[in-house]
Amino acid sequence: MKIDGKPYRSVWVDEDGWSVRIFDQTKLPWQLDILRLTGLAEVAQAIRSMQVRGAPLIGAVAAYGVALALRADPSTEGLERAVAVLGETRPTAINLRWALDRMRARLHNLPPTERVAAAYAEALAIADDDAETCRRIGQHGLPLLREIAAKKGQVKVLTHCNAGWLATVDYGTALSPIYQAHDEGIPVEVWVDETRPRNQGAALTAFELGKHGVKHAVIADNAGGHLMQHGEVDIVIVGTDRVTRTGDVANKIGTYLKALAAKDNGVPFWVALPHSTIDWRVADGVAEIPIEERAAAEVTELTGRTADGRIETIRVAAEGSPAANPAFDVTPARLVTGLITERGRCEASETGLRALYPEAG
Amino acid sequence: MKIDGKPYRSVWVDEDGWSVRIFDQTKLPWQLDILRLTGLAEVAQAIRSMQVRGAPLIGAVAAYGVALALRADPSTEGLERAVAVLGETRPTAINLRWALDRMRARLHNLPPTERVAAAYAEALAIADDDAETCRRIGQHGLPLLREIAAKKGQVKVLTHCNAGWLATVDYGTALSPIYQAHDEGIPVEVWVDETRPRNQGAALTAFELGKHGVKHAVIADNAGGHLMQHGEVDIVIVGTDRVTRTGDVANKIGTYLKALAAKDNGVPFWVALPHSTIDWRVADGVAEIPIEERAAAEVTELTGRTADGRIETIRVAAEGSPAANPAFDVTPARLVTGLITERGRCEASETGLRALYPEAG
Repeated sequence: MKIDGKPYRSVWVDEDGWSVRIFDQTKLPWQLDILRLTGLAEVAQAIRSMQVRGAPLIGAVAAYGVALALRADPSTEGLERAVAVLGETRPTAINLRWALDRMRARLHNLPPTERVAAAYAEALAIADDDAETCRRIGQHGLPLLREIAAKKGQVKVLTHCNAGWLATVDYGTALSPIYQAHDEGIPVEVWVDETRPRNQGAALTAFELGKHGVKHAVIADNAGGHLMQHGEVDIVIVGTDRVTRTGDVANKIGTYLKALAAKDNGVPFWVALPHSTIDWRVADGVAEIPIEERAAAEVTELTGRTADGRIETIRVAAEGSPAANPAFDVTPARLVTGLITERGRCEASETGLRALYPEAG
Repeated sequence: MKIDGKPYRSVWVDEDGWSVRIFDQTKLPWQLDILRLTGLAEVAQAIRSMQVRGAPLIGAVAAYGVALALRADPSTEGLERAVAVLGETRPTAINLRWALDRMRARLHNLPPTERVAAAYAEALAIADDDAETCRRIGQHGLPLLREIAAKKGQVKVLTHCNAGWLATVDYGTALSPIYQAHDEGIPVEVWVDETRPRNQGAALTAFELGKHGVKHAVIADNAGGHLMQHGEVDIVIVGTDRVTRTGDVANKIGTYLKALAAKDNGVPFWVALPHSTIDWRVADGVAEIPIEERAAAEVTELTGRTADGRIETIRVAAEGSPAANPAFDVTPARLVTGLITERGRCEASETGLRALYPEAG
């Protein structure tokens, strides 16, 4: 996608042909810092400190981390060490583990002299695969927006959190249909939930959309229901962290409330996802998916930029008041109009998912 | 209610017998500043700058403002001038107008020499009436909490925004049953919605509850649905800015989303209000109640205290991104379990309200 007219991905090889470039996402939206990663330790640190985030992007950056590590030490021990070091940066990220396994499988049996070139090629393939997956998600979501725009002359989408290209390699998931609609001239506007407590909507989604030139407005998470009551939302599209085989959707805390409001107002509620997000083992999302409880300080404190450019952290809650901070919630399939995957759209149900993925589970 | 064990109201006459004391609510929760108001201009400024807020409190403070004005000039012109100046501080506050009309009616026909004493007495009566109204609301809400606690051994309440004693003269509306339950030893815990964008929950409700010693935790507005899905909320109680004669409830933006989640999870959803909040002219809240659109900066910027004690305002949204900021929403009566008024509880319907207020409309 674009920043001020110039095309970018969220990870790429520098024009020097070997070092790896990423945005420092901990600085967004305040500062557009492009980092240059030149070795294993730097890549591990970038992942650990969340300078890159989003499961697909973490996987691709880790793959490039293997390539950089092999430049210094292309031995089998070097390969194993790189996989081990990178695998520990975010222990629960399934996509990270998957990308590292793919790199090891490709490289293990090669002679050391061939590993560096093969590693860069495989990392690029991982990145390309993700970009293509996201592009296809967008293609399959696009008709939904096209249809509304054909009827109404425009389309107003509400989204929650950041499921954009900064969390993937390109396009994003929920934002992919929006970017593609915008690029083909459909008048699309986006209501961006700020997404407390970490404000990924106000910070990252608003940044992405603004830089690409998509019309949008940030709203408090509280506002979506009112906007739907008054016909100001044509469709909701969100991403997801995990979808059960029955179509229950785990996503950033607050998603469930928007799904309830969509249902109450007859607004279609769609969820965009790559197949890697489907958890075929789980049937009842509300009962079975464990929800991470994160630090209270994420609720009671906030970081942002002062008018004169300083980055400050302030306490917003009363002194001494504790906070609870569940990070995700589960939207039952009955509230989900449908799923948008790289293979097409389907009902949020086991029947729907198995029709698209007959080979699964 | 209490601050660190000491009883307070939100407005009172100083021990000097004439000057008027309030908390500077623009400084809460960061600083507990008690202001001393000594004349008309100071009172008008305190209301205008929102050092006092909440319809009932504004009315009571304005009444004391008339008393202070008459100390300087007890003539009929002085009375009229005071009423005019105070009436313009918050032009849309119906309660302010009502309190000033009551003061004028009481004072107009008295000889100037008797006006000051009568004004203090009438202002106190207005404050006492409000405190008594709120105490009764609490008494009528209390059985709901008592019943849950009897079954479960404790009661977990979720509330939105600030409908506490800082917005009234004492007790509050939604928080009144909670304070009274706490004071009679019922183990009550409160989930405090932070209430973006102005954070009245995180700042004021958390402050009030903490200072009075009520167990509570601040949560992002997004979290309530998840907590209800997992049985962590026994009852929702909120206040309201306006209730239609049919029981639709206008309240701080986001209330509707909590009502939807309560309905979806079988959690009782109650609304606490004094009769002055009922608008007998309006039948369809969603269609007929105009919703104030407030400044975008309330969404994109936030004020709080840094670790070293400075008060800073930071931008939290991406630079250049616009924001929309509807301040209230309307919860349809079908989602409201019932209303708690100073006369008792009733169904959220015209039948229910007319049974409690047969003399109305």
